Amino acid sequence: MTQNPKNIAIIGSGLVGSLLSIYLKKLGHQVTVFDRRADIRNTEFSGRSINLAMSNRGWNALREVGIADQIKEIAIPLDKRAMHVIDTPIYYQKYGKDGEAIWSISRGILNRRMIDIAEASGVDFRFEEKVWDVNLPETKLYTGDTEKGEWTEYGFDMIFGCDGAFSRVRHKMQRRSRFDYSQDFIDVGYKELSILPNADGTHKLDKNSFHIWPRGNFMFIAMPNLDGSFTCTLFMPFEGDVSFESIKTKAEAKSFFKSYFPTVQNDIDNLAEDFFKNPTSAMVTMKCYPWAYWDKVALVGDSAHAVVPFYGQGMNAGFEDIFVLNKIIAEYGDDWERIFQEYQKDRKPNADAIAELSYRNFMEMSTKTADPKFLLQKQIEKRFAGKHPDKWIPVYSRVTFSDRSYAEALAEGDAQEEIMRQVMGLPDIEKKWDSDAVEELMLELLKASRL
Amino acid sequence: MTQNPKNIAIIGSGLVGSLLSIYLKKLGHQVTVFDRRADIRNTEFSGRSINLAMSNRGWNALREVGIADQIKEIAIPLDKRAMHVIDTPIYYQKYGKDGEAIWSISRGILNRRMIDIAEASGVDFRFEEKVWDVNLPETKLYTGDTEKGEWTEYGFDMIFGCDGAFSRVRHKMQRRSRFDYSQDFIDVGYKELSILPNADGTHKLDKNSFHIWPRGNFMFIAMPNLDGSFTCTLFMPFEGDVSFESIKTKAEAKSFFKSYFPTVQNDIDNLAEDFFKNPTSAMVTMKCYPWAYWDKVALVGDSAHAVVPFYGQGMNAGFEDIFVLNKIIAEYGDDWERIFQEYQKDRKPNADAIAELSYRNFMEMSTKTADPKFLLQKQIEKRFAGKHPDKWIPVYSRVTFSDRSYAEALAEGDAQEEIMRQVMGLPDIEKKWDSDAVEELMLELLKASRL
Repeated sequence: MTQNPKNIAIIGSGLVGSLLSIYLKKLGHQVTVFDRRADIRNTEFSGRSINLAMSNRGWNALREVGIADQIKEIAIPLDKRAMHVIDTPIYYQKYGKDGEAIWSISRGILNRRMIDIAEASGVDFRFEEKVWDVNLPETKLYTGDTEKGEWTEYGFDMIFGCDGAFSRVRHKMQRRSRFDYSQDFIDVGYKELSILPNADGTHKLDKNSFHIWPRGNFMFIAMPNLDGSFTCTLFMPFEGDVSFESIKTKAEAKSFFKSYFPTVQNDIDNLAEDFFKNPTSAMVTMKCYPWAYWDKVALVGDSAHAVVPFYGQGMNAGFEDIFVLNKIIAEYGDDWERIFQEYQKDRKPNADAIAELSYRNFMEMSTKTADPKFLLQKQIEKRFAGKHPDKWIPVYSRVTFSDRSYAEALAEGDAQEEIMRQVMGLPDIEKKWDSDAVEELMLELLKASRL
Repeated sequence: MTQNPKNIAIIGSGLVGSLLSIYLKKLGHQVTVFDRRADIRNTEFSGRSINLAMSNRGWNALREVGIADQIKEIAIPLDKRAMHVIDTPIYYQKYGKDGEAIWSISRGILNRRMIDIAEASGVDFRFEEKVWDVNLPETKLYTGDTEKGEWTEYGFDMIFGCDGAFSRVRHKMQRRSRFDYSQDFIDVGYKELSILPNADGTHKLDKNSFHIWPRGNFMFIAMPNLDGSFTCTLFMPFEGDVSFESIKTKAEAKSFFKSYFPTVQNDIDNLAEDFFKNPTSAMVTMKCYPWAYWDKVALVGDSAHAVVPFYGQGMNAGFEDIFVLNKIIAEYGDDWERIFQEYQKDRKPNADAIAELSYRNFMEMSTKTADPKFLLQKQIEKRFAGKHPDKWIPVYSRVTFSDRSYAEALAEGDAQEEIMRQVMGLPDIEKKWDSDAVEELMLELLKASRL
């Protein structure tokens, strides 16, 4: 179906806002993107962003609009985890089958590239112009220097809120009756740090790995950048014995890195420096509904569904929103009320599913990695998946490498978990975990669960 | 412990705000209450308030500050439910033991009386003065005619947000990091209606009953007023076959009341009139945490925990907040940071419990009242409670007539539910529900659950 050109405003020039602008421009609409921040192409990065892991869903959305190749130039494939377990040599875990990888990209570099592409295609960007208020029924925007100062009014046919977890557009929708909303913070914060390149510009650690230092209730990760550095993130409780609150001096920071992260000894000065320079940030799961106001306003990406970052799917989920929205537009043409209805009906259960999966991954990493029963369970699953790869697809692969929905991945994961609950309940499972009997039981339970 | 007098602002002159002002004034503080609305003593009521059911927790809070007797003058005791089941003569269900009752009070009349009492005790009320912004760390308020107009700044030592489910004070706290928040609307709305007095001023229905017309997924209730009228509430889905949306004309409203509510035939003209005059309102469960900002700002009542009205505990829970806060003040004197910490730690699990109980009551009323298994279960519980009143206290009695916490009531209710799940799973329970065997099993399960 063809579309009548509309005059569209997008609030937020981040990854989702800029990709959506490229899609809508391609469909022939007039597109203006507002952002309260300065043009990221002219500013230094903020030091509070986990590096991104682009996976299948993200690439699909970029490919559909013809820009996947340009983005791959600035991405590094990671085909495995590198596990830095204390008192154990580094070991590696392949992510999937051959050729399956997630891709490390710097958020800032990616965002700059996408704004370049959008601008070249004719999208109009208005930076440093903060939207203070939105008139939903009349699709009007109000921008200005201060909340109490003079405002400029803009009229549009449609407005998209791509303004992140603390969205101003959603905030306006939230004041309406019958709008469901929740924000839940976890007690763990994060801080961005970095590992510098070697003197010759090469990477200090294997550059095609996602590096993880799991330490029970805290964790350190590192993802490679093009310039030989790694962007690292320290996840740690805000308060408690080992916590952001408990590390008060540079000396304490150094001794913290020294005792817990022996494989990064050469960067300790730098890490301790960063520790006090960079902010400690909080992580939130945000859910809401509805995502759309008639045929006038819709939320896309984090403004509709923010997740904790432990599945590496936040951006991928936002890009998939756009990919799905575009398919629905192709089906319903000019009927924007219907388009927005179908869009939110399709995406809401999937957003809830990836929120749940992301939260579970956080719980798993923070409480279960030291539990021998949990590790045994993972071993049994791995053995079984190796022998029956068509019958037992790990949830991680479904989420990261497949096109099937997040909701399906969650449901399949729950079914697998139920089977494993029964397997782990067998007497002496520790002794017979790799027996034929266990394998046969799993095959049987799988068969029953498919009925 | 004694208290240094503080200069305290309360936002909201509703039931919780005015009761809190009476408590704080009595402790020697200077108290100013702000409300954006006009003085309720000079205005007509709005027609969107379910009549209140004051029960034990509410009375405790009024008694503690010496005003229970004055309030009892404007309340009518209801010692039973009057069930108006279709094709069945009206029948009655006693609420509790002799003397146990809930009390019907008009929200407006109660609020007027409480503001009178507060004002007489020296509380300063500033009506029609809307608080637009709150500076939390500096405990400053900003009021004015419009959001963008001139504002007046006020400085206080402490600020209490008693401004209801859509609290401005909480809204300001919500913008801070690590503030958990949720609002969940149910798909059922409500509308206030009324049954007028007889010509001689007497009540048309028994005046000491809480009248209920359960109709599956909708429901009509009536509570008596002092003037011979009843304040009625129609609870019904917003959309669907029988819904607020589906009744479009006065004729349709009349035929609706005629077919479903035969015991109110004489008031049909009046009900149909009200139906289109009065608004349809939504119902929300609102949760948040924390409730306090250091020793400076705290939320009390609906601003901290709004519940759906199906347990009749919204106001009672808010009054109990104040009762508990007052006890904690007595213990910790001038240490307001500690006071607020203890207050929120004590009240949060109880607020969550009454939210859960209220929501379950809604689910029970809307989906289970027609289920024969559910009715049989209630019958078995009633029989057992009659024979062993010390061993089986119904959750309703715990919530409504006891001083024990809401959290305990919820936990005991869950334990009873688990026992009944086993009882209802017995083969042929329909035939042997009143047998000694069932009674003995329940005694045994009860004993086991106490271990």
